[in-house]
Amino acid sequence: MRQTFDATTDPSFGPRHAPLIRAAMARQALDGFLIPHEDEHQNEYLPAANDRLAWATGFTGSAGAAVIFKDAAAVFVHGRYTLQVRDQVDPGLFEIPDPVEGGGPAYLERAAKAGWTIGYDARLHSPDALERLRAAVAKAGATLKAVETNPLDEAWGEARPGQPRAAVVPHPLAYAGEASDAKRTRLGEELAKQGADSAVLTAPATIAWLFNIRGGDVIRSPLPLGQAILDKDGQARLFLDPAKVAPELPAWLGNGVRLEAPDALPAALAVQKGRKVLVDPALTSAWYFEALSEAGAAVIRGPDPAALPRACKNPVEIAGARRAHVRDGAALTRFLHWIATEAQSALPDELTIVAKLEGFREATGALKDLSFDTIAGAGPNGAVVHYRPTTRTSRRLETGSLLLVDSGAQYLDGTTDVTRTLAIGEPTAEMKERFTLVLKGHLALARVRFPEGTTGSALDALARAPLWSAGLDFDHGTGHGVGSYLGVHEGPQRIAKAPSSVALKPGMIVSNEPGYYKTGAYGIRIETLQVVTGAAPLAGGERPMLGFETLTLAPIDRRCVARSLLTDEERAQLDAYHVRVLAEIGPLVPEDVRTWLEGACAPI
Amino acid sequence: MRQTFDATTDPSFGPRHAPLIRAAMARQALDGFLIPHEDEHQNEYLPAANDRLAWATGFTGSAGAAVIFKDAAAVFVHGRYTLQVRDQVDPGLFEIPDPVEGGGPAYLERAAKAGWTIGYDARLHSPDALERLRAAVAKAGATLKAVETNPLDEAWGEARPGQPRAAVVPHPLAYAGEASDAKRTRLGEELAKQGADSAVLTAPATIAWLFNIRGGDVIRSPLPLGQAILDKDGQARLFLDPAKVAPELPAWLGNGVRLEAPDALPAALAVQKGRKVLVDPALTSAWYFEALSEAGAAVIRGPDPAALPRACKNPVEIAGARRAHVRDGAALTRFLHWIATEAQSALPDELTIVAKLEGFREATGALKDLSFDTIAGAGPNGAVVHYRPTTRTSRRLETGSLLLVDSGAQYLDGTTDVTRTLAIGEPTAEMKERFTLVLKGHLALARVRFPEGTTGSALDALARAPLWSAGLDFDHGTGHGVGSYLGVHEGPQRIAKAPSSVALKPGMIVSNEPGYYKTGAYGIRIETLQVVTGAAPLAGGERPMLGFETLTLAPIDRRCVARSLLTDEERAQLDAYHVRVLAEIGPLVPEDVRTWLEGACAPI
Repeated sequence: MRQTFDATTDPSFGPRHAPLIRAAMARQALDGFLIPHEDEHQNEYLPAANDRLAWATGFTGSAGAAVIFKDAAAVFVHGRYTLQVRDQVDPGLFEIPDPVEGGGPAYLERAAKAGWTIGYDARLHSPDALERLRAAVAKAGATLKAVETNPLDEAWGEARPGQPRAAVVPHPLAYAGEASDAKRTRLGEELAKQGADSAVLTAPATIAWLFNIRGGDVIRSPLPLGQAILDKDGQARLFLDPAKVAPELPAWLGNGVRLEAPDALPAALAVQKGRKVLVDPALTSAWYFEALSEAGAAVIRGPDPAALPRACKNPVEIAGARRAHVRDGAALTRFLHWIATEAQSALPDELTIVAKLEGFREATGALKDLSFDTIAGAGPNGAVVHYRPTTRTSRRLETGSLLLVDSGAQYLDGTTDVTRTLAIGEPTAEMKERFTLVLKGHLALARVRFPEGTTGSALDALARAPLWSAGLDFDHGTGHGVGSYLGVHEGPQRIAKAPSSVALKPGMIVSNEPGYYKTGAYGIRIETLQVVTGAAPLAGGERPMLGFETLTLAPIDRRCVARSLLTDEERAQLDAYHVRVLAEIGPLVPEDVRTWLEGACAPI
Repeated sequence: MRQTFDATTDPSFGPRHAPLIRAAMARQALDGFLIPHEDEHQNEYLPAANDRLAWATGFTGSAGAAVIFKDAAAVFVHGRYTLQVRDQVDPGLFEIPDPVEGGGPAYLERAAKAGWTIGYDARLHSPDALERLRAAVAKAGATLKAVETNPLDEAWGEARPGQPRAAVVPHPLAYAGEASDAKRTRLGEELAKQGADSAVLTAPATIAWLFNIRGGDVIRSPLPLGQAILDKDGQARLFLDPAKVAPELPAWLGNGVRLEAPDALPAALAVQKGRKVLVDPALTSAWYFEALSEAGAAVIRGPDPAALPRACKNPVEIAGARRAHVRDGAALTRFLHWIATEAQSALPDELTIVAKLEGFREATGALKDLSFDTIAGAGPNGAVVHYRPTTRTSRRLETGSLLLVDSGAQYLDGTTDVTRTLAIGEPTAEMKERFTLVLKGHLALARVRFPEGTTGSALDALARAPLWSAGLDFDHGTGHGVGSYLGVHEGPQRIAKAPSSVALKPGMIVSNEPGYYKTGAYGIRIETLQVVTGAAPLAGGERPMLGFETLTLAPIDRRCVARSLLTDEERAQLDAYHVRVLAEIGPLVPEDVRTWLEGACAPI
């Protein structure tokens, strides 16, 4: 098993560790210290060695922060973690402000005292995030101070795990589709167009994509932690721990890339003196900006130049994604068959369900990792949007309920992410009605055609309008970008309510995952990945249009559908999808599964 | 007749006037001069005295600018005026760059010479607009210089019309719904919350709304040109030409408002010394910012504090809008009956049609003005989005064609804006198909329910998706805000592709006007005004939702509808609208019109 279900922290973490942090703060004469979730790589998922927030507080979610003052402390989390944080954090030690009250900056403005010095580790904050904190602290009459030594790291001391050293290996052209030197040349030309001499790159996904390498430093995504400096002529310096460098790597990187140890990085930044250097203020920590300014470089603040090219998958990556989704769909279909047959009477618990699904994916022989820990939410657990089953929370299935399963895999040829909501016994009329409203939104977003220049935020309402019309909605984004054997959450595109200026472009992969959640009762989500394509021209059509090709192949549970709520167009669309699922997945599954799949894919 | 069809300029304007402007420029040692369309009030529509761009170039559209260098000149227009500008402007004198090439700033960067001094009139440019021009001129190595005397005004001299002096009169509470002192008090409190001591207000719509006054300085909207300074305690100074002040005005304004002549304004700005003054950098010209800075005031740049409160109509204004739309709908219905009967054989020309429609509105006895010049586009003229018929372009109706009529009125109780597209004879199958696609989008936007916080840009795609699905689209916004006996285009809300952060709020009036345009053939647009309301709660609904109440009441031409393309839901929605039209308008029109209306409102 790749997944574990035991808690890695508990509420005693705060009471045990905060005094050590405060002692280290006192030695540096700090009245407070800022602890973001982010690490040196501004990454969503962290190696254990860098999960400082969890060690300091017990909170393990992927979006949060803490402040420890000498006489008070608080933890801030994204709204989706409101319940989780109260389980994991000692409320006697930490204040837990409501997220709607404004988060860390609002707390700092309220709780910091005039004259205080509040420390921060410049390696852990992006300049964008730091500006908001600095402004709040200033309003309280206090000041921020960059520390030389992180007092939390000092307090953690010997107990801190080592930095990850997974081998960094080539990502072959058969999967990457474009050689690193070609990528570097076109990014270099882009830098020149923006008037930059070079770019400092620190986002792990950019390091992986630009050099066609993959690592294993971060769980659930094959990211190598490292940094690079790309020059406008396409030459680059790549900084990786020598212990991680696979023997074949130097030859793979070729002459255009100088491979160096991380301790060469400060000197490499120092020689940027007099040059114009592009750095992303949202992805790269403040330390780099300060180091470049001190070196006398002219910093150009702008988006990571690899973000958009990486998001637009090339034909080889798209072909890989199709293969990965057929393979993953066959594994998932075997699981769905098990849920629809044996599990209906055995009524297993969530942990058994997660293990069973992982087993089917493992059996493909191609599984490199899961793309995230499986969410299997039975009954009311399905209504907890970012639920992850543990030994303490796992529920057994019950007849007359719904099971929500959100899972995905990492294969060399692609990353998957799929959610199906499944009937255990006979769903109620209300469950079917709401499932169908979610399905209508999902189908609308899957079939939409749209002109170039359209953003994901312009399409978001299509997936919500059927729910809105019934007085319902859901509190998460409708779609996120997905990498190619990279992160399962990858920008810059997304489909969400928040305004966006990033247009959807051919080759971008996005999820389509509307949902509905009834607290204490059940959760519904239907998620597929889809790739932006040029839409086939139509008779009478006047303008080129873009559209989506659905990548994910697994039946949508017909037992949950209220047929009468679908229009003829929606019925035909659902049936056509199922015809495709049966044609592509049917030949890959055992006889008994195929027989079941024929029924599961029958016309609605 | 309130409308005229003769051209007010011709292409000789440039050759006759540019030499005079250049002579005045030379006297000030200027190498160039910037001529925006905007006047001192940053208003969309201008009094003749302030239409400097038209006088200098011949171009009369509402979005454009010109630059006159000593040896070259250019005119820039919004994309919708590409055809019009070539008719109105002498191409031998003016370069007319393609709008996609970046407009004025791009031209300045390209055409200005190093060392040149280029003049501008600070009273005519907002700081936001000026920054873009200044950056472009700097790239060319030239500099911008604010003029003391506008060389164009000097050149125009005696020939320039006088400033408008229409009487400024009270706008009674029976229409305004909220007393000026109550409005000023709540805006003052808002200023205090933002840390401002006062606000300088120059937008004519804000002057009208805040003081409950109306004027007639600008054609087609009852705007008084003036300025105000509002203090945080709700007291205000209002600057109006004494010649415009109606005798009853001082008593109407009351003690909280000090009425002064415009020449008192500079001194009033000077006494802002040491105060924090809110000014809108998009609506107020740079001159005010400079005057306040020189006076030693701390300028806070922020949106006009009246913009959002003005957009959210109060119950009295909404009741007025409903009355105005019933009255206007009856007039329009009499016109539609005439088109559907007599005009089918008489086949009149566009000018006759415009006059006929104006006549029906005049006959209500309540018409204060039109809200804009009527667009009546027969056949191919309907495909010109911002078409306005003239003696030169007017076409007669032809059998087998479409007629697009976009018109509106100003009544004391409300402003209307409505477009109907009408069959002349039998439309082709293609016309009906495309009309129905436009109708589907229109209906989707009319019936949508949405949660609080939703912006117009999030809803825009609902109106376009049916066209997109057929490879079609339209190149204008889907909806604009509308004032209450004020401007027919009024922000801050809009429904458009461009990202917006302005949420739709109860009481906001917006248009719903998707279209389709086939160049050289025909144009289709279906437009109603609708007001944002709290949607009635639904059984099973969990969240409060907003929705739209349709204000406009006039039949949609059933002869243009391809019934088979509508879903059952769409048919029921169209039929329900027509039931309402018949019930509300039927009793107000003559017998023969009512009989016709019964057929026009029959189920589809």
